[in-house]
Amino acid sequence: MIHFDTDYMEGAHPEVMRRLLETNMEQTAGYGNDVYTGQAKELVCQACGKPDAAVYFLVGGTQTNATVIDGLLARHEGVLATETAHINVHEAGAIEASGHKVLVLPSHDGKLDAADVERYIDDFYRDETYAHMVAPGMVYVSHPTELGTLYTLSELEALSRVCRKAHIPLYMDGARLGYGLAAEQADVTLKDIARLCDVFYIGGTKVGALFGEAVVVPDPQQLPHFFSLVKQHGALLAKGRLLGIQFATLFTDGLYERIGGHAVRLALKLKAAFVAKEYRLYMDSPTNQQFVYLPNETIDRLSAYATFELWGPRGETESVVRFVTDWATREEDVDAFIRML
Amino acid sequence: MIHFDTDYMEGAHPEVMRRLLETNMEQTAGYGNDVYTGQAKELVCQACGKPDAAVYFLVGGTQTNATVIDGLLARHEGVLATETAHINVHEAGAIEASGHKVLVLPSHDGKLDAADVERYIDDFYRDETYAHMVAPGMVYVSHPTELGTLYTLSELEALSRVCRKAHIPLYMDGARLGYGLAAEQADVTLKDIARLCDVFYIGGTKVGALFGEAVVVPDPQQLPHFFSLVKQHGALLAKGRLLGIQFATLFTDGLYERIGGHAVRLALKLKAAFVAKEYRLYMDSPTNQQFVYLPNETIDRLSAYATFELWGPRGETESVVRFVTDWATREEDVDAFIRML
Amino acid sequence: MIHFDTDYMEGAHPEVMRRLLETNMEQTAGYGNDVYTGQAKELVCQACGKPDAAVYFLVGGTQTNATVIDGLLARHEGVLATETAHINVHEAGAIEASGHKVLVLPSHDGKLDAADVERYIDDFYRDETYAHMVAPGMVYVSHPTELGTLYTLSELEALSRVCRKAHIPLYMDGARLGYGLAAEQADVTLKDIARLCDVFYIGGTKVGALFGEAVVVPDPQQLPHFFSLVKQHGALLAKGRLLGIQFATLFTDGLYERIGGHAVRLALKLKAAFVAKEYRLYMDSPTNQQFVYLPNETIDRLSAYATFELWGPRGETESVVRFVTDWATREEDVDAFIRML
Amino acid sequence: MIHFDTDYMEGAHPEVMRRLLETNMEQTAGYGNDVYTGQAKELVCQACGKPDAAVYFLVGGTQTNATVIDGLLARHEGVLATETAHINVHEAGAIEASGHKVLVLPSHDGKLDAADVERYIDDFYRDETYAHMVAPGMVYVSHPTELGTLYTLSELEALSRVCRKAHIPLYMDGARLGYGLAAEQADVTLKDIARLCDVFYIGGTKVGALFGEAVVVPDPQQLPHFFSLVKQHGALLAKGRLLGIQFATLFTDGLYERIGGHAVRLALKLKAAFVAKEYRLYMDSPTNQQFVYLPNETIDRLSAYATFELWGPRGETESVVRFVTDWATREEDVDAFIRML
Repeated sequence: MIHFDTDYMEGAHPEVMRRLLETNMEQTAGYGNDVYTGQAKELVCQACGKPDAAVYFLVGGTQTNATVIDGLLARHEGVLATETAHINVHEAGAIEASGHKVLVLPSHDGKLDAADVERYIDDFYRDETYAHMVAPGMVYVSHPTELGTLYTLSELEALSRVCRKAHIPLYMDGARLGYGLAAEQADVTLKDIARLCDVFYIGGTKVGALFGEAVVVPDPQQLPHFFSLVKQHGALLAKGRLLGIQFATLFTDGLYERIGGHAVRLALKLKAAFVAKEYRLYMDSPTNQQFVYLPNETIDRLSAYATFELWGPRGETESVVRFVTDWATREEDVDAFIRML
Repeated sequence: MIHFDTDYMEGAHPEVMRRLLETNMEQTAGYGNDVYTGQAKELVCQACGKPDAAVYFLVGGTQTNATVIDGLLARHEGVLATETAHINVHEAGAIEASGHKVLVLPSHDGKLDAADVERYIDDFYRDETYAHMVAPGMVYVSHPTELGTLYTLSELEALSRVCRKAHIPLYMDGARLGYGLAAEQADVTLKDIARLCDVFYIGGTKVGALFGEAVVVPDPQQLPHFFSLVKQHGALLAKGRLLGIQFATLFTDGLYERIGGHAVRLALKLKAAFVAKEYRLYMDSPTNQQFVYLPNETIDRLSAYATFELWGPRGETESVVRFVTDWATREEDVDAFIRML
Repeated sequence: MIHFDTDYMEGAHPEVMRRLLETNMEQTAGYGNDVYTGQAKELVCQACGKPDAAVYFLVGGTQTNATVIDGLLARHEGVLATETAHINVHEAGAIEASGHKVLVLPSHDGKLDAADVERYIDDFYRDETYAHMVAPGMVYVSHPTELGTLYTLSELEALSRVCRKAHIPLYMDGARLGYGLAAEQADVTLKDIARLCDVFYIGGTKVGALFGEAVVVPDPQQLPHFFSLVKQHGALLAKGRLLGIQFATLFTDGLYERIGGHAVRLALKLKAAFVAKEYRLYMDSPTNQQFVYLPNETIDRLSAYATFELWGPRGETESVVRFVTDWATREEDVDAFIRML
Repeated sequence: MIHFDTDYMEGAHPEVMRRLLETNMEQTAGYGNDVYTGQAKELVCQACGKPDAAVYFLVGGTQTNATVIDGLLARHEGVLATETAHINVHEAGAIEASGHKVLVLPSHDGKLDAADVERYIDDFYRDETYAHMVAPGMVYVSHPTELGTLYTLSELEALSRVCRKAHIPLYMDGARLGYGLAAEQADVTLKDIARLCDVFYIGGTKVGALFGEAVVVPDPQQLPHFFSLVKQHGALLAKGRLLGIQFATLFTDGLYERIGGHAVRLALKLKAAFVAKEYRLYMDSPTNQQFVYLPNETIDRLSAYATFELWGPRGETESVVRFVTDWATREEDVDAFIRML
């Protein structure tokens, strides 16, 4: 059985495991006050071209989103996001649980449009009763999006421009960032992100780590007292060095890029096969998630060999399914699956 | 340099690492829907003598306390705890951040007294204006306490009796439970805890795991919808099997007991050496944390060979220091340190 | 100048003021423990046909909604409402500030459709990952709605049926309930509401009181410990008797009905005049709020004599405007205004 | 029967009622955008000697405290207060419900000591793990205190100095401020308070209004977006002019001072009578609350003529009782009561 369900089905990349094992018996201070976390922060800063950035390591995506958003918003503010955003749908109300409203805008293939954001903000402040409503206090985007799509550089620049004009931070959820950076036609680099976003996180859980997300704050003043907030949100790992070791490994010798590149290459191989077989794409994704319409009977037939996710409800004759690759996906499995298409 | 600072300075027990490595390339469903998590739940239930208990695995202690307490309390209720309780001091306001007050009672060597709890509840409801105040909605104890001390069986029974009479749950923070169960004069077993507490957690982070805490709910109805709350609190690990594998390992072949026993034996060896040298104990602790008064010059002299924590402010001539052992502490290091005393 | 801006532009109905003045020097216990509050509760219960209902008096609508919803929802639950609902738009995030998500459904002339609610709940529990999402924990409707429209008895019965089938409470915001009960074609009585809703409030602020809303809980077990929650939300009035006196007055000798009837009659007179002049209604409202399309030049012309609210943005040639009547609206002013149309 | 239970047993001062009645039929904009609220703000600013202060009118004390504290604190901060503080005991957890911890310091006759505050802050930042704990983010005092006592000018100056040195705001709960300003030996004026506190409120509910508290922010930048927060906390009165009219009346022709002076004079008459009869004072209060030890039989005897509050539990032979006067207390009643002593 071949598994294309998601990108967190295995443990960690073998290189990450090797380093965790090598350092296992060393004794270090807790809560990230160790040499490995220091190294990891430096490597991340370097990769972002922001030597003075603050970097924080948290365990998972939901807690990272909740903690960052809680740190960025004042009490009367909410976060602008698409209606399909992870924070709006799949985080069990974590944003609201810390007191903030998700302000919903339309999704354009999973993406937020700068013009929509600008219009929302303009309309908001044009309404005389705006102080009775939740103020747009920040913008949340994910890159890649939930649908595998990517912002172009000019789209991201437009969002950044709108946010800075409105004096609200732009935050990027990079749970799958490695796959976005590795996409062939991607014109957004990590340095662009660090230049255009006020806060963002580089995902580890879905990109080769056992777990872990690296929050980057190019201008540390944007998130003061964030360490205490991480603790308050229960997101501070006692053995913080586990995060440091993992991210130091991912950001050494281009491992993070290699992981992304491998997964994307195999995903595109799958996509090409779908297209070649004349299956209709649900989304034109350049990253490690591929969405395609398949006849229900094809889905049933393939399910004997492989697992993958139904995206939305099963249709009458055909349905959308999602295929996900990651660092551990084997080319021979992809080839074998393609032959079964 | 020998380190006695705390019990989370290393990675994980080698057996735990071995199992993580062995299973690393297996593909499993996320969020704890995997075979290892299933096994771990069963093993924990067995160890607790509660085959029908609900077991949830979370990543760390602060998030576990915050999530459980949030799940147990109604909005108008607070949690009774000693003034020295971890939730009252060292969790950066995590309990209050989810809306609940910590109601403080005196600490008796780190422990909460059943009579104090009973009196608090009685006085509360005798006050005609009680509906204007935060109702005592649950009791929080840690075992061992922050000071390494243990509840006796009769003390725990008394607390349980008071709680059940008042219809409020008794919750035990077992961050260092392994060391408490392994203490020589301990008369409280895991089965006692499962019988007397309404919710408790078995600590992994400080007892041999890379990270992880196992929340046990003997009567699952006490914490309905807890999975969603775990998610909402950002405490749900994507690769849930990491927790399952670790706890399954800890609860196989008595590893959890062996870890506890090893650390406690070495801690008591240290304690005996302090006593033999006529140093005054600050706390008569039967577990892996030892607290002793040392002359400041002795502290300074020993600091060349070993690290340990100052407990509270440095005194004029002597100070309290804490020594902590764990599964990784080596007997030869303890012996060498004792010779230097 | 005649004012049709809203229904809270004056103080209180003269009868209410008279009673406040008459009782002003009496000394009573605080927080609603006074004879007038007792009387008011009894009168409200009587009017609702629910002698055993619990009745609580709060000061304003936003605080009432926030407190009731906080009391009804578990932490993992959200409240279903239309996208135009007051709690979703105009309460500055009060619901989210107490930790809960507003789950949005389409508005049908301001109303929530029972079939939409049923489908939402069905779809929710059919999704295997539902525990990662905010559970629909209650339904919020307002009657009259923000657009002046009313639920029919069969619509309300359908909503009640869906809620009870799903074991979630149905809550009605009755900020303008008096105007809804007084509408000519209204087939929903106060007793129907008390039979079909699990919690609802009878608005005072907009219906003749200085301020005040009466929360009715037909089965008091639905909102246990609500008094403490009212206090916690800062919604408990020290001089609670002010609320008691006002509601006792409103529910004596049919004053509440008379206030509603007067305002509705004049609103319908306005509506008839609009229709007679062939202005297009934006909404076919049977209550004290009337929404009509007027040419911008007509709006400008009328603004010399009267004030009223632009509903939404000003259009190119015509715009929607809202006219609101209340107990204090004078027939001669309405007649004079109609002559100017 | 004469009532000395508390200072919110009547309606409002007749002058306040007169103005409410006079203006009752006027139509004004809602939410404080009316001419009376504007006048009231100006009068309050004038009385405080701070022409540029921001003034907000809220309905009650608990909501005022919760809203102001929520506005002043960052998420990782708590509020320093005495253990007897109203926010710590009698507000049903309102502070915690909005996410903040009350950090408790000893009470000195109900007052907070500047040296205690300074030591707390110093110790906090000296602790290396301070980022794991709730940071002291503001100081809460009440003046008069719960025990009727007053800060001296030098005590208040010391608190202000400590707060400004630590860059945290000083907030004063002035629920009974009128009685504090009117005390004979009071050396703290309203202008002193406006100079030394960063935010404070002038109580109306207990000092002659039907309800209402005036929050004063000498430097408006200290509480940005406070209007939205007031709305979010459900503390925004629709008919805001009711608050404006009341405070405009209280701050016209010295009414607020007269109310305070009357109540204090009668309270001191009572106090003098207690002393003359050789009853022991529990607290040496210069304001409208008097606390005295009375033999239980005396209490029982007096209860036939008057009501007053038992302060704490009934003792074996004597108990502490509280007598409260206000604007409505009649001198002949006080005299009659004194004769019965």
